[in-house]
Amino acid sequence: MPILQLEGSQLAKTDNLNAYIIAPDPKAPRLTRAVDGVDHDGNPANISVVEERPLTIFLNGQEIVTAMTIGDYPDYLALGFLRNQGMLKDGETVKGVDYDEDLETVVVRTDGETTYEEKLKKKTRTSGCAVGTVFGDMMEGLEDTTLPDLRVKTSDLYALSATINRTPSLYLEAGAIHGTVLCQGDRPLVYMEDVGRHNAVDKIAGWMLSEGISPDDKLLYTTGRLTSEMVIKTALMGIPALASRSGFTAWGVEIAREVGLTLIGRMRGRRFVCLAGEERLVRDADPSSIPEEDKKHRRKSADA
Amino acid sequence: MPILQLEGSQLAKTDNLNAYIIAPDPKAPRLTRAVDGVDHDGNPANISVVEERPLTIFLNGQEIVTAMTIGDYPDYLALGFLRNQGMLKDGETVKGVDYDEDLETVVVRTDGETTYEEKLKKKTRTSGCAVGTVFGDMMEGLEDTTLPDLRVKTSDLYALSATINRTPSLYLEAGAIHGTVLCQGDRPLVYMEDVGRHNAVDKIAGWMLSEGISPDDKLLYTTGRLTSEMVIKTALMGIPALASRSGFTAWGVEIAREVGLTLIGRMRGRRFVCLAGEERLVRDADPSSIPEEDKKHRRKSADA
Repeated sequence: MPILQLEGSQLAKTDNLNAYIIAPDPKAPRLTRAVDGVDHDGNPANISVVEERPLTIFLNGQEIVTAMTIGDYPDYLALGFLRNQGMLKDGETVKGVDYDEDLETVVVRTDGETTYEEKLKKKTRTSGCAVGTVFGDMMEGLEDTTLPDLRVKTSDLYALSATINRTPSLYLEAGAIHGTVLCQGDRPLVYMEDVGRHNAVDKIAGWMLSEGISPDDKLLYTTGRLTSEMVIKTALMGIPALASRSGFTAWGVEIAREVGLTLIGRMRGRRFVCLAGEERLVRDADPSSIPEEDKKHRRKSADA
Repeated sequence: MPILQLEGSQLAKTDNLNAYIIAPDPKAPRLTRAVDGVDHDGNPANISVVEERPLTIFLNGQEIVTAMTIGDYPDYLALGFLRNQGMLKDGETVKGVDYDEDLETVVVRTDGETTYEEKLKKKTRTSGCAVGTVFGDMMEGLEDTTLPDLRVKTSDLYALSATINRTPSLYLEAGAIHGTVLCQGDRPLVYMEDVGRHNAVDKIAGWMLSEGISPDDKLLYTTGRLTSEMVIKTALMGIPALASRSGFTAWGVEIAREVGLTLIGRMRGRRFVCLAGEERLVRDADPSSIPEEDKKHRRKSADA
């Protein structure tokens, strides 16, 4: 598959709003809806809320899961989900991805039966149903994960969060949604949003898989918390650095340290904390020169 | 089972911090961990982060799911999860709940095989594995849900959020965690927190099931977004009102209107928006008399 060559770090740090390959489309009619209600003063309130739709993902003949999603990029979501769950392994060729909007299903077809399907059949014979177990295998493959030795410039981190916070998004339009951004140097490449926090990451994984994007020089930025699942997904995607404006869980930190992933959290204005992979950081920016976060770009609670 | 009689609404609106039956225990050693890192200035940072543990839930002999949880109240979590997934129905007697801390498993034992297990067996025979499908049945039972005609005083809503924001919690201690509170009148009864947003709700459902608590005069407060799943769970629990400081999804609003649930969101300081079940609101408080939210109690992003 083609490996995209991008010279992001050569772009000016000031003008990256137009550098996106995929950016949020807050005005897309299918993604938000205006809803009438009543406010605290008893006055009519018409507010814009995000859509949320079920999408059932199939791997060949096998129903895998029903995800709640905003509904954009169902093909990337399905591919990325199966990939991040280890159900779609290297060397398995995807013949096609068929999305049916009416049936709210997406079917990923591979060239022959996947090892996951074989495994599931076996487990199904023994234990009745094994999805729980198989989902439990998600950490499988982590032990032989080695992440590239990327340099992460703090100047890029600051430039990225400034650009991302200024990017028109469904969050700014309607709130109550999570964002994840695939970044290279100081350049945000693909900004996915979803009601399901992990869907946003899976959509990025699906895009990378389809386009044959190398993870080696990338950083993943998320608005969500740095939980074990976020860290595992990032590591399985081969991305060496994960940054968030939100906090950590202990297990997320533990796994990041085990796999050698650089983990940066609580990133707001000039502030951040690095709890794993500190050695990748190149501290080329003077934090005191970074302005505090503009209040209107401060995320309140897109709690998921 | 005993129905707890509580005269919450007769308590003074100013002193409810001690009214909890279950409150967060931010100092419990098992729930948080101090982790060393480096801050934006390159100085050592020692921060408190929440724990996150896998917990595999079994229904009798059947493995159901592995949840990521902070690890308190595994018994309530398992009961509430099975109940809210419709896997544990009325009339099915729970013989016991066995938690094994070392194996990180919790087994809910019922008096004989549940209808869920029979259904799963049948589906397993036909489609290999049916957990996806069976989880898809979650909205089952919603059509015959009728929610009691509770009066929701806006004075109680304001009192509740003031009390809840002032309550010592893991969120205030370590951040990156969600909270859900079962309330009666202006009194918060049970305040559960978890890294998994839905776990907090399930723990409350499990507690209500164990204690035989009537949902009729209760309101559920959550820090998380008002998604379809939150609305469905609240309705299935029989609770007529759901309030959040966070936002809405379109499908969440739709379902709330269908089942007649009062849905209040974006509740911060004197502000809120009601998008469903407005008729339950008793506007007995003057919003202009309500102070804006104290900055230090403002939740930033406990994004999940």
